[in-house]
Amino acid sequence: MRVCDLIERKRDGSALESAAIAELIAEYTADRVPDYQMSALLMAIYLNGLTPPELSAWTDAMLHSGQVLDLGHIPGLKVDKHSTGGVGDKISLPLAPLVAACGVKVPMVSGRGLGHTGGTLDKLESIPGFRTDLTVERFTQQVADLGVCLIGQTAEIAPADKKLYALRDVTGTVSSIPLIASSIMSKKMAEGIDALVLDVKVGSGAFMKTQAEARELAETMVNVGKRLGRKVVALLTDMSQPLGRTVGNALEVRESIEILRGGGPADIRALTLRLAEEMLALGGVDPAEAARALDDGRALEVFRKVTAAQGGDVAVIDNPDLLPKAPVVEAFLAPADGYVTSIDAQQVGLAALMLGAGRQQASDAVDPRVGLVLDARVGDRVSKGQPLLWLHHDQVGLEDARRRLTAAYRFGDAPVSATPLIIDRVC
Amino acid sequence: MRVCDLIERKRDGSALESAAIAELIAEYTADRVPDYQMSALLMAIYLNGLTPPELSAWTDAMLHSGQVLDLGHIPGLKVDKHSTGGVGDKISLPLAPLVAACGVKVPMVSGRGLGHTGGTLDKLESIPGFRTDLTVERFTQQVADLGVCLIGQTAEIAPADKKLYALRDVTGTVSSIPLIASSIMSKKMAEGIDALVLDVKVGSGAFMKTQAEARELAETMVNVGKRLGRKVVALLTDMSQPLGRTVGNALEVRESIEILRGGGPADIRALTLRLAEEMLALGGVDPAEAARALDDGRALEVFRKVTAAQGGDVAVIDNPDLLPKAPVVEAFLAPADGYVTSIDAQQVGLAALMLGAGRQQASDAVDPRVGLVLDARVGDRVSKGQPLLWLHHDQVGLEDARRRLTAAYRFGDAPVSATPLIIDRVC
Repeated sequence: MRVCDLIERKRDGSALESAAIAELIAEYTADRVPDYQMSALLMAIYLNGLTPPELSAWTDAMLHSGQVLDLGHIPGLKVDKHSTGGVGDKISLPLAPLVAACGVKVPMVSGRGLGHTGGTLDKLESIPGFRTDLTVERFTQQVADLGVCLIGQTAEIAPADKKLYALRDVTGTVSSIPLIASSIMSKKMAEGIDALVLDVKVGSGAFMKTQAEARELAETMVNVGKRLGRKVVALLTDMSQPLGRTVGNALEVRESIEILRGGGPADIRALTLRLAEEMLALGGVDPAEAARALDDGRALEVFRKVTAAQGGDVAVIDNPDLLPKAPVVEAFLAPADGYVTSIDAQQVGLAALMLGAGRQQASDAVDPRVGLVLDARVGDRVSKGQPLLWLHHDQVGLEDARRRLTAAYRFGDAPVSATPLIIDRVC
Repeated sequence: MRVCDLIERKRDGSALESAAIAELIAEYTADRVPDYQMSALLMAIYLNGLTPPELSAWTDAMLHSGQVLDLGHIPGLKVDKHSTGGVGDKISLPLAPLVAACGVKVPMVSGRGLGHTGGTLDKLESIPGFRTDLTVERFTQQVADLGVCLIGQTAEIAPADKKLYALRDVTGTVSSIPLIASSIMSKKMAEGIDALVLDVKVGSGAFMKTQAEARELAETMVNVGKRLGRKVVALLTDMSQPLGRTVGNALEVRESIEILRGGGPADIRALTLRLAEEMLALGGVDPAEAARALDDGRALEVFRKVTAAQGGDVAVIDNPDLLPKAPVVEAFLAPADGYVTSIDAQQVGLAALMLGAGRQQASDAVDPRVGLVLDARVGDRVSKGQPLLWLHHDQVGLEDARRRLTAAYRFGDAPVSATPLIIDRVC
């Protein structure tokens, strides 16, 4: 394999052989292909795409670039969910224990927040003591014992993706659908899952701003999953305004606990149930179990056990006031009378980031206490001076956050209906 | 300037600002932009092109990345010629002294052979003692004294091009018309010339295989030269078969001396005169001087002085048998009766390379003695067993060379006319 030949083939619009892709990814992971060649190839892929067979080979090569978990000794089907990322998206927290409570195993490897999007690991870690850096052995054992475990990506899983992502980040090659699809699917499939439900976000707070892009990404991921022998279903869901009423780590844990108690905002409950139903169907369990397990407390009970098993303070589950709290809570007021016609979720996410809830760079620390609690959502009528939302803060980034929030809200004279939560289903 | 922003702009088909290009090239030359970012940008340029203003800015930035020679104190216009490279293209050897003999100054900075193409420096250095690594001071002085000097590129001239070319070579981004044009034009304009004649080769032995590509490259170079204030004329000339009858360094010097004596193959003489006429016209001298200076020995006299000034053994000019000679000369015979319908110049160039006349890598050494002397050219009738050409060799690469020569020649039952030598003129 001459790397230059592969670059030239892709540059000229031809497809690469699977064996060549496998060798390339292996050699790149082993630091035997220089970044400057890989980045030229990534740009050629960005502009010329990958065919379905190429994408399967690329994903499979990344998946096999490190450790591939084998959960075959654990009885039953293993099913995970992946969201492409949004603002206020805490769905994994109620969802994973809910699905496990219904009898489907959930080996969930999650990420951290970056830019305007939050991350499941940051949210969980706002529970005092909660550990997400478990060994693969403990992870596997907990999936066997409790049916669910929530950890972060280990250095051993899909190292090619880690290296490629860092390179894409500095070479203008992040927003390529085949590269995004292979990145997500390789990591997820390395978890040893049988099936996967994808929550592909679309709208101002998502990476995919249009339904067409989101659908292409969903179809691409579903196809590559199927080609590699997994059952995959994708939902296109709305991210044109934040999900639920909270944005920020401890605030989102509190909202998740409300959901697990059978309460919480309607959109979070609806999406949690719908994703759970999809996962149960893939796992061979009656989807109707989901609502029952949420309302009878079984899901909460699993969350309690998971929290205890992963070192977290279970007292917060019965008394969410024990979660870390920001020293100041202040209102952000409606500037005029009218109807809320849109809330730019990305600007809301960035406002929370400015307060310390997120990261600009992967090495930044997050403040679990800070964030936003939304009173008014799209379609609501507000009066001038009424609180639109509440800032939970510690004096950091306040001015920038307020500026972004001012830009985020749009008002009109007539009510508008919000985009439906579930836009489409791809399978 | 965030390099990533520039990459993304070019990736998305937008144009870059001149100031951003200038800063990028300066930072890259200073090793403050990593190769992996530049290679991603180069691939985006390869696939999305550069607009004329971008190309001017890119070329100007490369031109100013190092030393720019100032020949303003030497009276008269300074005019150079550049060929895009071919097989048997020794035109610079008779051309440069011929134009100088007519009164136009020729500050010529040339390259070495690479791949199937030969290089002027390698040819000159087959004259015992001939030095092409002169200092800029000696170069300038000789242009003032003799009207012409022939040297190699110094490390100080257009260092950005040197660095970029090395990167393009390993990232599949060599064959991009704007990148080729900026590479050539930045180096040439850094020589301190007022005008330039481009010999853009087209055909099997050229980098541009089709007239359309060659014309695009010619137009691109002429335009960037004009935008940067130089007079530039380009000729499209045939490289579908080797130029002249010799391929190989000392062999081509011998043929060049024949031309300077008023003899030699008709195609070499015609192209030398035509290019000289273009250069003289740009330099403000009557083009008719060219033929006179070639035939009355003035051009040869300048070549003799140049050879002496650059340390070469002038005895070879009167007695070319003193040039280094290969130990073995053997015939390559026609396999059948017929007309020669084509000679793949690239394969002929590679056959000479195999014998040692060229380089596979820039670090390789060349053997000045070896090469090929062609008897039969396109259109000639040959009989089976008649010599098509002669291999001058030292037992190296003989089998590979013979295989390539067998593949290079095509025969037919009817005569064909060769492509015209001068295909077009672009200005």
